[in-house]
Amino acid sequence: MTEQLSKKGEAWSARFSEPVSDLVKRYTASVFFDKRMWKADIEGSLAHAEMLAAQGIIPTADLDAIRSGMAQITAEIEGGQFEWLLDLEDVHLNIEKRLTELAGDAGKRLHTGRSRNDQVATDIRLYVRSAIDDITGLLTQLRSALVDLAEQHADTILPGFTHMQVAQPITFGHHMLAYVEMFGRDAERMADCRKRVNRLPLGAAALAGTTFPIDRLRVAQSLGFDDVCHNSLDAVSDRDFAIEFTAAASLIMTHVSRMSEELVIWMSPRVGFIDIADRFCTGSSIMPQKKNPDVPELARGKTGRVYGHLMGLLTLMKGQPLAYNKDNQEDKEPLFDTVDTVVDTLRIFADMAGGITVKPEAMRAAALQGYATATDLADYLVKKGLPFRDAHEAVAHAVRTCVDANCDLADLSLDQLRAFSPLVGEDVFEVLTLEGSVAARDHVGGTAPNQVRAAIARVRAQLGA
Amino acid sequence: MTEQLSKKGEAWSARFSEPVSDLVKRYTASVFFDKRMWKADIEGSLAHAEMLAAQGIIPTADLDAIRSGMAQITAEIEGGQFEWLLDLEDVHLNIEKRLTELAGDAGKRLHTGRSRNDQVATDIRLYVRSAIDDITGLLTQLRSALVDLAEQHADTILPGFTHMQVAQPITFGHHMLAYVEMFGRDAERMADCRKRVNRLPLGAAALAGTTFPIDRLRVAQSLGFDDVCHNSLDAVSDRDFAIEFTAAASLIMTHVSRMSEELVIWMSPRVGFIDIADRFCTGSSIMPQKKNPDVPELARGKTGRVYGHLMGLLTLMKGQPLAYNKDNQEDKEPLFDTVDTVVDTLRIFADMAGGITVKPEAMRAAALQGYATATDLADYLVKKGLPFRDAHEAVAHAVRTCVDANCDLADLSLDQLRAFSPLVGEDVFEVLTLEGSVAARDHVGGTAPNQVRAAIARVRAQLGA
Amino acid sequence: MTEQLSKKGEAWSARFSEPVSDLVKRYTASVFFDKRMWKADIEGSLAHAEMLAAQGIIPTADLDAIRSGMAQITAEIEGGQFEWLLDLEDVHLNIEKRLTELAGDAGKRLHTGRSRNDQVATDIRLYVRSAIDDITGLLTQLRSALVDLAEQHADTILPGFTHMQVAQPITFGHHMLAYVEMFGRDAERMADCRKRVNRLPLGAAALAGTTFPIDRLRVAQSLGFDDVCHNSLDAVSDRDFAIEFTAAASLIMTHVSRMSEELVIWMSPRVGFIDIADRFCTGSSIMPQKKNPDVPELARGKTGRVYGHLMGLLTLMKGQPLAYNKDNQEDKEPLFDTVDTVVDTLRIFADMAGGITVKPEAMRAAALQGYATATDLADYLVKKGLPFRDAHEAVAHAVRTCVDANCDLADLSLDQLRAFSPLVGEDVFEVLTLEGSVAARDHVGGTAPNQVRAAIARVRAQLGA
Amino acid sequence: MTEQLSKKGEAWSARFSEPVSDLVKRYTASVFFDKRMWKADIEGSLAHAEMLAAQGIIPTADLDAIRSGMAQITAEIEGGQFEWLLDLEDVHLNIEKRLTELAGDAGKRLHTGRSRNDQVATDIRLYVRSAIDDITGLLTQLRSALVDLAEQHADTILPGFTHMQVAQPITFGHHMLAYVEMFGRDAERMADCRKRVNRLPLGAAALAGTTFPIDRLRVAQSLGFDDVCHNSLDAVSDRDFAIEFTAAASLIMTHVSRMSEELVIWMSPRVGFIDIADRFCTGSSIMPQKKNPDVPELARGKTGRVYGHLMGLLTLMKGQPLAYNKDNQEDKEPLFDTVDTVVDTLRIFADMAGGITVKPEAMRAAALQGYATATDLADYLVKKGLPFRDAHEAVAHAVRTCVDANCDLADLSLDQLRAFSPLVGEDVFEVLTLEGSVAARDHVGGTAPNQVRAAIARVRAQLGA
Repeated sequence: MTEQLSKKGEAWSARFSEPVSDLVKRYTASVFFDKRMWKADIEGSLAHAEMLAAQGIIPTADLDAIRSGMAQITAEIEGGQFEWLLDLEDVHLNIEKRLTELAGDAGKRLHTGRSRNDQVATDIRLYVRSAIDDITGLLTQLRSALVDLAEQHADTILPGFTHMQVAQPITFGHHMLAYVEMFGRDAERMADCRKRVNRLPLGAAALAGTTFPIDRLRVAQSLGFDDVCHNSLDAVSDRDFAIEFTAAASLIMTHVSRMSEELVIWMSPRVGFIDIADRFCTGSSIMPQKKNPDVPELARGKTGRVYGHLMGLLTLMKGQPLAYNKDNQEDKEPLFDTVDTVVDTLRIFADMAGGITVKPEAMRAAALQGYATATDLADYLVKKGLPFRDAHEAVAHAVRTCVDANCDLADLSLDQLRAFSPLVGEDVFEVLTLEGSVAARDHVGGTAPNQVRAAIARVRAQLGA
Repeated sequence: MTEQLSKKGEAWSARFSEPVSDLVKRYTASVFFDKRMWKADIEGSLAHAEMLAAQGIIPTADLDAIRSGMAQITAEIEGGQFEWLLDLEDVHLNIEKRLTELAGDAGKRLHTGRSRNDQVATDIRLYVRSAIDDITGLLTQLRSALVDLAEQHADTILPGFTHMQVAQPITFGHHMLAYVEMFGRDAERMADCRKRVNRLPLGAAALAGTTFPIDRLRVAQSLGFDDVCHNSLDAVSDRDFAIEFTAAASLIMTHVSRMSEELVIWMSPRVGFIDIADRFCTGSSIMPQKKNPDVPELARGKTGRVYGHLMGLLTLMKGQPLAYNKDNQEDKEPLFDTVDTVVDTLRIFADMAGGITVKPEAMRAAALQGYATATDLADYLVKKGLPFRDAHEAVAHAVRTCVDANCDLADLSLDQLRAFSPLVGEDVFEVLTLEGSVAARDHVGGTAPNQVRAAIARVRAQLGA
Repeated sequence: MTEQLSKKGEAWSARFSEPVSDLVKRYTASVFFDKRMWKADIEGSLAHAEMLAAQGIIPTADLDAIRSGMAQITAEIEGGQFEWLLDLEDVHLNIEKRLTELAGDAGKRLHTGRSRNDQVATDIRLYVRSAIDDITGLLTQLRSALVDLAEQHADTILPGFTHMQVAQPITFGHHMLAYVEMFGRDAERMADCRKRVNRLPLGAAALAGTTFPIDRLRVAQSLGFDDVCHNSLDAVSDRDFAIEFTAAASLIMTHVSRMSEELVIWMSPRVGFIDIADRFCTGSSIMPQKKNPDVPELARGKTGRVYGHLMGLLTLMKGQPLAYNKDNQEDKEPLFDTVDTVVDTLRIFADMAGGITVKPEAMRAAALQGYATATDLADYLVKKGLPFRDAHEAVAHAVRTCVDANCDLADLSLDQLRAFSPLVGEDVFEVLTLEGSVAARDHVGGTAPNQVRAAIARVRAQLGA
Repeated sequence: MTEQLSKKGEAWSARFSEPVSDLVKRYTASVFFDKRMWKADIEGSLAHAEMLAAQGIIPTADLDAIRSGMAQITAEIEGGQFEWLLDLEDVHLNIEKRLTELAGDAGKRLHTGRSRNDQVATDIRLYVRSAIDDITGLLTQLRSALVDLAEQHADTILPGFTHMQVAQPITFGHHMLAYVEMFGRDAERMADCRKRVNRLPLGAAALAGTTFPIDRLRVAQSLGFDDVCHNSLDAVSDRDFAIEFTAAASLIMTHVSRMSEELVIWMSPRVGFIDIADRFCTGSSIMPQKKNPDVPELARGKTGRVYGHLMGLLTLMKGQPLAYNKDNQEDKEPLFDTVDTVVDTLRIFADMAGGITVKPEAMRAAALQGYATATDLADYLVKKGLPFRDAHEAVAHAVRTCVDANCDLADLSLDQLRAFSPLVGEDVFEVLTLEGSVAARDHVGGTAPNQVRAAIARVRAQLGA
């Protein structure tokens, strides 16, 4: 057995039979991950070529040849016939090489007035811009689904927790809207980040600009960019937009992780507030009653992945001298994985929100455990004239009595309550009910059902739904 | 000696004589760091009290008493007579306690309709907003100083590097403007972040809102907030705005670290491009010629500190169930230290920019080493009709000849150059000079001196200077 | 009000009245945090001076003068009379300056054959070594306390959770021992790290060694170091030992965060497995029944702080050229705060373990909810000859029947159970009890009470208790 | 063009046509990355089966059937015929399913007394252990190559830098040995980590152990483990060993990043200390003289990747309640990528060390610029009786004179030198040469060539070479 293991050791080291020179080639090449940007690469090249022709830098015939060559390459890639070669290092050279095969000298002229440095920076920005648009759409879907859930439970009462201790009654709709707000800010951040992503680096060439009479604004317009990058060194060397995007993505995952934590706790049998549709859970092979909330757990775990990518990108850029250094090739994989993780997670969560079954009885039972309306009693006394800190004191005594008697505040008689303050009147019992408590928090942002409904209407107007 | 050491061990463990209960008190208290927010705390309380009075929740006389109490507390704190007590846990209770001593029942009424949860969230937002305003001002100062430096050196030529190898000549003014762009985006991010910081949590109370007829919009207006937080649970529990701020601060430090790296390299004797004014350097006690660029080195090192705070805050919020948990107390120290680090660093850098002495001869000498105008020769041939990739090939041969002959491209005779391509004419020598090379990159974002001057004018207009 | 705020803005910017030159001095000085290492600094200096005298590099009289000078400085610092000066930059110069005042030329000779670079590296190592010893002792205390708790509850049954769903019954003692194992590995890591910390950098001088005939081994022995650093450049420039320490500290906090999460959940009213002694909790000013588990929440939050320091230190060292750079000054504050955080947390947790009150009835009730003995039934069938996967299938049907009938497996009659498999006999009911289930997991590492007791004995032997 | 872009937007969203249920399946499955552990999985299963048979829990015939089934599966996987199915979720179920096809009931019995929780924990430990062994071997190779390089340049003098300013002359061999020390500590850390990795979790089953009479020590021995995990909950739920491994890997990358930074700077034309063999560099398509040190740049960039994985794993484990949660599935990808990155990087660096060409003249020229022997002059005066701080003062004046005269200390006449101190004698010129300076640092860890040779011998003895 040990022998087999040591053989396994060998087997795992079998990669070591790869000659170092091949290893170096693989180590420095990027085509196996950057080919994902092929569409952006072709799009950018077409916009560049069109400008070159318009400026008379290349003949119109060359533009035509480039266009038809790129059309064929597109067909080949989509059809799966395009052969990606490690020897051609990256997506740019793979495509340019093929174009030259197809379009001859026109292909060789395409790179006039640009460099791989500004080309790759353009591709990444197109890629991130598209990712932002996808994510923004998915945040809208998720918020819509949560708003729908909130509407169904605008009146469903559960305990609001602080420190995981029962604090005050709230409605489940109100709780869901907290996440709607969070994901709303996430969408704002994506929109703000998009402004900085959507500037054209092309024209910066290697680092200093080019000697050809290029028209950068025309290219920017073709590609839907809002502006050009105003300094060529900066254009090819900074990746702050990618870090900003990953930081915004990290906050999405932070919010996802918080929601996941709550879903997992709520599905735990001692709590039992909700059930999640089977397709987001896995069973155990042995205990059919056991439904594990796999999706929220995994999403919570994936938070670390995105945080890690953020840390990786920050480290990457720390202390790099201008302009372009090979280090920057490492910007892509964390970025791609961040996009995949956030897109998949949001899509599943948007669907999962509709798969949450709320168990109002369990929620209500929990809200009744823990003197959740004690604050209401204090507020009642304040309204009768007692200073707030004195009201607290009085309620403290009342609760202590209930703890000893193992009953709720609402179970005390009027006389018993009056013992703590002569200001107590018959109307006190209204404020001691769960419904009275939530209804009384009736101002913008409060948990009262009509405020929840107003908030829902407000968000729906934002979402254009 | 060993004995002394083991005694030292004891001494270092002397803290262990602290009883655990005192330790717990210190461990859980925040007053020693959150007292820094005292002004925000008083400001917020005054706005709250004014609203309570306007809504008839407290009598006007109470408002007056609160105002004069707070005025006295302000005087005491500013005068250094205020006694901060660990037993009162945090800045809020320390101030409220003193207020109650000074204002009696009015002081006890101040907390009506709010809770420490929304109070502290308001304080932090006021603090971060002010920090953003400070940082924005400092970014403007730094950019102005860099623009001034760029203007002085709009024509000063140095080699542009990629991979720390000589690539193409650029101007020092152009290089400085790359940082002006970076710090400009940092200012944009601060402005975007400010929008999300500048929303009022007050009114969320513990987590669910309050039963008093509060007017949150009025308080928002008093305190200069653009809007209120629209969900009470979200208002007290999220700190995404603080993380977004720290992420934006991390990018500022990323840019600072890159600039620092370049300054350090440029001051290294083998490079010798610049000198930095003495007050930003330290000497060695033994070698008077030795000037260590301490400030940029330390700034580069402080990058890690801010990245670390970002990671700390992200970790803090990961997986936290709603609403408020004690974990959140840990948001302050990293935030405060981030503000201090960024504010100090930017202030010093704004001043240091004016203390940079450029050494044009060393820069020029370096630019002449490394065939920096080879791209210009290739572009020249393209303009004469050669496809770009073929032009490259021709120039490659020319450079190889120079390498063998240990001379520059401009040192070759016309005949020698014609040997590589018959397209070469007399006008070739213009493009082979450093001045010709930079002047030719004459489009938006290019390194040509007149483009540098245009960019300076553009930034100055932005800065309102 | 707005006016007051804008004044506040000014006030917060009041720091800006500090002249930049003073700011630079403060920015680059370290004395306000590195003075914490004063004992290590004096200890290191004494060992160095003693060696210098033994080697005849300084006269014995100088050694005597240095010793008495240092004795006085020690007294001054301990007595609080020592005046720390920002102008003297750091702990080393502050002490050396005072020594020269007290000991004249002898003081000026102390720095012979060393430099601040190797001096500070020595101080940090002495500091970290002492911190490791403190932390190791505290891990032992915490493990002892957890072992005591485990012993009290070697038979107390609670549900073991996976995915926060009930899985199988375990004992609370067994659960506590999981943490004993984790903290045991943390102690191992500290011991391993100590080996690399405990090597002497002194003698490396600025970076290359010194021309004096020093005896590094003698100094190493005096200071209790196991070895010397074998390369002078490495000795002054690397801080990997500090990062390794912070990584080990991060894992301690990871384990603390997991335990904290469980304590918080267990104290939540719907779960109610434990109570934590009052001194580790805070109440709410309004709800006396509300006990917030502040200490575990805060400890969970402090995890982020230590992770952040680790990331900060890694960033600090990334890409630094040899040998010493000013960046390294930034190593101290994260290190000091890591030590403080871990030491305080462990001390409190060691005490808190004894303050945990277990509620066996709530645990038992939870264990009975969720078919926790289903695996036992499957194992029973396997032992009767059924292949494991088939046994699972049979049990799955049985559980489904119970779910429908809203009863437990143990509530089914023998006939009912036989319907799922004819292999079921009378002895089945033993395996369906909670006690039977835990007792049956009777192998090394299993949850059976006698295994728990064996594990306790094993750990106690390790701890020497 | 814009239209095409918007089509591209669609295309990028084409993934959205995937139904959510398929997406969930892909989201939660791990087979596409965990199949990499197939050998460990089979190895672990065989050891488990052998023990089951030895304990009489399964018949010997079943063991035989399992063995031949596993042999066939091994052949299928190695031959590329094994069909990995997403529907079977992970490597474990894929293999078990196939085994049951091949071995019938024996296959169904394999899972007796274990669970996927302890199975996957075992697989990861086997995988990490093997990775540690690979990395340890590669660290030895890299250290050997650096020692060889150091030996060739035990006498080659270059300036030692602090703050990137010339400090004192050192030898290149000594400089290389600094990295030999660093990578040596990295190997120590790997060895220490291996102890904690090399403990067997199998037998912990789902979380509580099993009811079968298993023999865990036997399985541990079969698989080469040093010990068993002594608590079943801990065994299935902790991943601290993986984090410790990633932290150690991060330190390797820290050291790699520092060495890379130096290589990049040394190859920069203004410095020109070294050349790196072509196969580790790329040229530019236009400037044949331009050799970009791609490999060190990329390695420096990959540091961020590994730091990021460390942060990701720490985040993953933070606050996770016991025992197993689905979050833990996220431990694998960062671990695998860390292993790949470190293994590839070390292999290439071990080879690259032999491809470094040192340029002694450039080094010497740099060492002569910057008064590198000023410390030697001060030490000389101390040896003649001057207190150290006074000697410094005298040398400071001498250097200032040289700066004004634009000459080196060695260029001053004896009389000129005597003007700064009457203690100067004829023998002063020996200490002012570069050779004299390095030779004088002649103690353990110093830069003197004979110390460098002694250090080389010491390391070679360690490496067994």
